Amino acid sequence: MQRLAIGIDIGGQSSKCGVVTQDGTILEQSVVTSLIDSFDDYLALLTDTIKELIRKTASKGTPAGIGIGAPNANRLDGTIRYAPNLRWARDAEGNPCIIHLAERLEAATGLHVRITNDANAAARGEHIYGVAKGIDDFIMITLGTGVGSGIVTHGRLLYGHDGFAGELGHVCAVQDGRQCNCGLKGCLETYASAMGVARTAREFLQKDSRESLLRKLDPEKISSKDIYDAAVQGDALAREIFVFTGRILGRALGDFVKFSSPQAIVLFGGLTKSREFFHDEMVKAMNDNLMQVWKDKIQILYSSLKESDAAILGASSMVW
Amino acid sequence: MQRLAIGIDIGGQSSKCGVVTQDGTILEQSVVTSLIDSFDDYLALLTDTIKELIRKTASKGTPAGIGIGAPNANRLDGTIRYAPNLRWARDAEGNPCIIHLAERLEAATGLHVRITNDANAAARGEHIYGVAKGIDDFIMITLGTGVGSGIVTHGRLLYGHDGFAGELGHVCAVQDGRQCNCGLKGCLETYASAMGVARTAREFLQKDSRESLLRKLDPEKISSKDIYDAAVQGDALAREIFVFTGRILGRALGDFVKFSSPQAIVLFGGLTKSREFFHDEMVKAMNDNLMQVWKDKIQILYSSLKESDAAILGASSMVW
Repeated sequence: MQRLAIGIDIGGQSSKCGVVTQDGTILEQSVVTSLIDSFDDYLALLTDTIKELIRKTASKGTPAGIGIGAPNANRLDGTIRYAPNLRWARDAEGNPCIIHLAERLEAATGLHVRITNDANAAARGEHIYGVAKGIDDFIMITLGTGVGSGIVTHGRLLYGHDGFAGELGHVCAVQDGRQCNCGLKGCLETYASAMGVARTAREFLQKDSRESLLRKLDPEKISSKDIYDAAVQGDALAREIFVFTGRILGRALGDFVKFSSPQAIVLFGGLTKSREFFHDEMVKAMNDNLMQVWKDKIQILYSSLKESDAAILGASSMVW
Repeated sequence: MQRLAIGIDIGGQSSKCGVVTQDGTILEQSVVTSLIDSFDDYLALLTDTIKELIRKTASKGTPAGIGIGAPNANRLDGTIRYAPNLRWARDAEGNPCIIHLAERLEAATGLHVRITNDANAAARGEHIYGVAKGIDDFIMITLGTGVGSGIVTHGRLLYGHDGFAGELGHVCAVQDGRQCNCGLKGCLETYASAMGVARTAREFLQKDSRESLLRKLDPEKISSKDIYDAAVQGDALAREIFVFTGRILGRALGDFVKFSSPQAIVLFGGLTKSREFFHDEMVKAMNDNLMQVWKDKIQILYSSLKESDAAILGASSMVW
């Protein structure tokens, strides 16, 4: 009987669980909500879901352990630390707190649990099963609601001294720029994420008087999807929003290259669906910010795995 | 008979050679000029110097190999690539070229030769023999004529895909800032190096009409040493130059932490002699650019090894 791994991708809205073979086939999947106020309730739901998945795949193999990718997760001590976007990870006063996720889930399931942050899990997934297979030095940038990153050097994920390496979404991309939720200003995340692109749209609509399909929408509710749809229809303002985004992202990528000199940068997440509108500007801005030794040499790759699959696969691979 | 290593620190002005024991004692040292126009002549001088050092230490041990730290050196193929500051590393037209240093020196000496870039060599020296002993995640920043860096993660030097990782002197510190020799603008090196501090002095003297000891000097010839001397005497303008430098350096260090999450940042090089005038501002600016998880937690250490010793020791350690 083959051994199977449970891979879990915990997000602010939902948590996706999968049963995965060692060669990276997802046998069964299940999605549960993350919008639960108490950790005990969330843990019970997650445990039930895992047990149900194990039952469903019992004829195909036995579970060897659980791997989890989650925001603000620390591989070294199995905790989630102060995650602003996880509703069940708050204390009695409603403030983000420390959750001993690995320990509690081990007690509930009897299975060994390993956790890492979501971007690191996605980077593992791409490295073992996806577009970064065979590439031992790359930087994964997740362009989702926020911006995350996982850095692979010499074939290994870079964790740093305390497990928190790779917070590239909070590198300063624009000096004295937009206020970020983290407390700093000008973070890459405030420009090159779904949230950031929506902020750019609101700014552009305010300072620019041109006609645009985006003017039909409530500015506070504009999403990156709305901007993409407008760009597809040829809306000039929408296209400029992506050009602006690509320029800031590309310049930041150039600085990242100077740190770890990767063979490739792998982009992942919802915003990459709009890549036709920012790719060229991003690549140009990156190369404009690189010395001769790297100019035109860094590959830009887009995740080839389905949206949540990279994280589930990467998380599951920690079991082996 | 014990085995000895030859450690060499190649700089633009001079090259320092030492014979080093495995426990990091420099038995003999010799300094030769780097201001030679032909590589063949430089190689002959270096070879003679090495042979002389070996003769002098023959009673104490036998040489096991040579380790070299040099600007633009690539560990992976043993070459120096396009080093703008090495006079003998130019082609017939006077342009920086590729020099097969390891191969040629092996042929000349009969000893095995390993090379790495100068900042990496210094980082190795600090890691094995200096202030970073026992610290497996740190970033070494060399504040010399220029700004170099060596990054140690999980106990190993980070080389990246092509051996060129760690060019933090060329990360953009000021957007649309000063023109750098590398072709980019606003590089950290144009502010936080001996050259950069002198540029700041010229700028400040021009835009500010206050009295200053620095006004007695030819602006084109002001050195970081002159500015230090003026600061020691209480010169307000000189002190502001260092505060400005510390602020830019500190902000950049904050962004570096977000990449590799080091336990410490180790500062090294001539400019650190002026640290009393920039340290506080640098630490404040770094912490102002860090998220809660790192604020006030990153150690700032200054090299405890003598100026060129870190590089000689680090270079020699590659032999073992």
